Amino acid sequence: MTKQRNPPPKKEHEETTARDLTNTDTSKMSESESRITIIRILAGVENTLESLSAEIKEVKNSQNEIKNAITELQSRMDAAAARMDEAEQRISDIEDKLIENNEAEKQREIKAKEHDLRIREISDSLKRNNIRIIGVPEEEERETGIEGLCEQMIAENFPNLGKDTDIKIQEAQRTHIRFNKNRPSTRHIILKFTKYSGKERIMKAAREKKSLTYKGRQIRFAADLSTETWQARREWWDIFSVFNQKNMQPRILYPARLSFKIEGKMKGFPDKQKLKEFVTTKPALQEILRGT
Amino acid sequence: MTKQRNPPPKKEHEETTARDLTNTDTSKMSESESRITIIRILAGVENTLESLSAEIKEVKNSQNEIKNAITELQSRMDAAAARMDEAEQRISDIEDKLIENNEAEKQREIKAKEHDLRIREISDSLKRNNIRIIGVPEEEERETGIEGLCEQMIAENFPNLGKDTDIKIQEAQRTHIRFNKNRPSTRHIILKFTKYSGKERIMKAAREKKSLTYKGRQIRFAADLSTETWQARREWWDIFSVFNQKNMQPRILYPARLSFKIEGKMKGFPDKQKLKEFVTTKPALQEILRGT
Amino acid sequence: MTKQRNPPPKKEHEETTARDLTNTDTSKMSESESRITIIRILAGVENTLESLSAEIKEVKNSQNEIKNAITELQSRMDAAAARMDEAEQRISDIEDKLIENNEAEKQREIKAKEHDLRIREISDSLKRNNIRIIGVPEEEERETGIEGLCEQMIAENFPNLGKDTDIKIQEAQRTHIRFNKNRPSTRHIILKFTKYSGKERIMKAAREKKSLTYKGRQIRFAADLSTETWQARREWWDIFSVFNQKNMQPRILYPARLSFKIEGKMKGFPDKQKLKEFVTTKPALQEILRGT
Repeated sequence: MTKQRNPPPKKEHEETTARDLTNTDTSKMSESESRITIIRILAGVENTLESLSAEIKEVKNSQNEIKNAITELQSRMDAAAARMDEAEQRISDIEDKLIENNEAEKQREIKAKEHDLRIREISDSLKRNNIRIIGVPEEEERETGIEGLCEQMIAENFPNLGKDTDIKIQEAQRTHIRFNKNRPSTRHIILKFTKYSGKERIMKAAREKKSLTYKGRQIRFAADLSTETWQARREWWDIFSVFNQKNMQPRILYPARLSFKIEGKMKGFPDKQKLKEFVTTKPALQEILRGT
Repeated sequence: MTKQRNPPPKKEHEETTARDLTNTDTSKMSESESRITIIRILAGVENTLESLSAEIKEVKNSQNEIKNAITELQSRMDAAAARMDEAEQRISDIEDKLIENNEAEKQREIKAKEHDLRIREISDSLKRNNIRIIGVPEEEERETGIEGLCEQMIAENFPNLGKDTDIKIQEAQRTHIRFNKNRPSTRHIILKFTKYSGKERIMKAAREKKSLTYKGRQIRFAADLSTETWQARREWWDIFSVFNQKNMQPRILYPARLSFKIEGKMKGFPDKQKLKEFVTTKPALQEILRGT
Repeated sequence: MTKQRNPPPKKEHEETTARDLTNTDTSKMSESESRITIIRILAGVENTLESLSAEIKEVKNSQNEIKNAITELQSRMDAAAARMDEAEQRISDIEDKLIENNEAEKQREIKAKEHDLRIREISDSLKRNNIRIIGVPEEEERETGIEGLCEQMIAENFPNLGKDTDIKIQEAQRTHIRFNKNRPSTRHIILKFTKYSGKERIMKAAREKKSLTYKGRQIRFAADLSTETWQARREWWDIFSVFNQKNMQPRILYPARLSFKIEGKMKGFPDKQKLKEFVTTKPALQEILRGT
């Protein structure tokens, strides 16, 4: 007889069960017949018990495997949690380091801006006694030398300053590079005075005269500034032109301050950031500067 | 008959079991009575078997669900482990990058300190031929010009240096800002000599004379230094005053070195760091500097 | 009777089972004997049922524990996944920050190089009117003063330049430190001209004359350059000497450009990087420079 996994339902159709007999009048059965029937039923019960027992054994084995699998999962989980702890600690350490670095970087940024400013200041101070003369044809200095040429230009344009002893030329040179490489142009002349006051007197006279000439040809006297200061001045251009249209008397002051008239007073700003802060308090100004 | 989960305990009180019968003298039972009893017991056994079988089936189903859950957990665990591997790799990469950055930042830090130093050197070198004159009332220069005023001061204080041809003034100017904005004070005069040697001769004479005057009023001749060098000198003040109290002859040397007498010899230090290193080898000095 | 975990195998050898009886001629048994046997077998079945039922109960309890363990594992897994999500987010944030920092650092690097360059330019420009005179014994200036000494040297070596009004000495000084601290050597003289053109005329004459003397002793006139420019020039030395051996007419141009003759033309390079880029296009040059 083969083991049967689900014996009760099967037996209902094949073999007489004790439950069948309880619904039967067994009094008609002979003692021997009933004995054989009972023994057969009992043998079936024994088989069923054996197979259930085997099934339970199997379930238990499976359960042991499951328990092992769970134990393994738990220890993997513990290991993963420990790795997570460690990883999170490393991440926190990195985050702390980044905050620290950030602080150091801010300091370096401030330091770099200081260096920017100091280099610009030094560079401008080296050019403080200079005037940049623009528009003098090359080769004009061949005969008189370049300093002689500059003296001629000063005499031609500012005859009254000839006797000013403060106005002493130290030296003059052509710049090395042309301002605009694509357009043929004369190189500028850098004219250095011995004294700042001498240079200032010439520049003041030049501003008052407005139109300067050399041998009848128009020339220009400009401040000699560091490239950094030129850059800073250039950044004011759009705002300058807006203020100019509005007759707000904008001026660029040394080294690169913008000043203009607002509410009847002249106000000066060293950079766009400072102007921006001021503008937030003046809606009318905000309106004027919209789009710059 | 309803299925009973725990049939044996229940039956003990309700129905006769085979185990009851083994403790009973069944010989008094009629064959028919015992047959009915046995069949009833057997039917009960069959019911119990059926319900146990159902329970086992249920347990097995549950076990399959559990196995599925475990398989799912295992694959989630595998996925988590793979994510952990990846996350740890990313963390390691970040840590490596930070070490690398750290190296680069150290280099930048060194570079920034070099720039500090070079800017200070350049700034000081631009002021090397200058003397800062403190205490001359504003407007004094109205008649003679500021350079004439300086010549008067030199003549008043150093009559013997009048014929020194090295002492040639290049130019002089008032500073742009007042030193202390809150206290009304006269602006300093920056007096620039053509030669370093001329300026040095005046400064030497000024140090020897100790008290200088202009029209009877006390004035002061000071070195003209970069703001960075002033800052560096200011950092010595507390230590300087301690050494002064201890008669250790402290002096500030150009640009911002502290020198003082220790163990019979003059020792000089360019900055606090270098002094600190020296101090660690001198317990007595450590004691003196405690608290600075 | 004690509960037996695996009753069927045991009974086979100890007690008569119903299955044994089915293989036996039970007709020889008396009704009473068979009744007792059947009851005993049934009692055994009841015991087995009871123990199976207990086992199933135990399995179910275990299964509940397992389910709880799985539920716990699942929620730990969920928590771990959530932690992973968070950790990965933090890692991503850090990576983004690093990329951002990297950008900022590149900008700072560029800024630092600009500062390098500007400091070098400024430092060189401050020395533009200077000549460094090497090899003049110390103390030679005691009688005439150092500027008088320089005038003597110019007169001795360049008698034709005596009347050049551009060549005006502003001042002269010994350097503060000796070039090589280990070898006793005379300190250099830094000779500053009022004009760049004056200094250039002297340097041109010095280059043409090749050998200069002071009181018959050989001296040298060199450009006065910033330490940064010296460093930049020094970096060309190995390449310079290779080009020199190959008669490629190498020259160091102001401030630190290397120029040399290649394919019949003079080519100039501001730094090694630019030369490297050029060399990659010239296999012959690559060959020459192998190993530098």
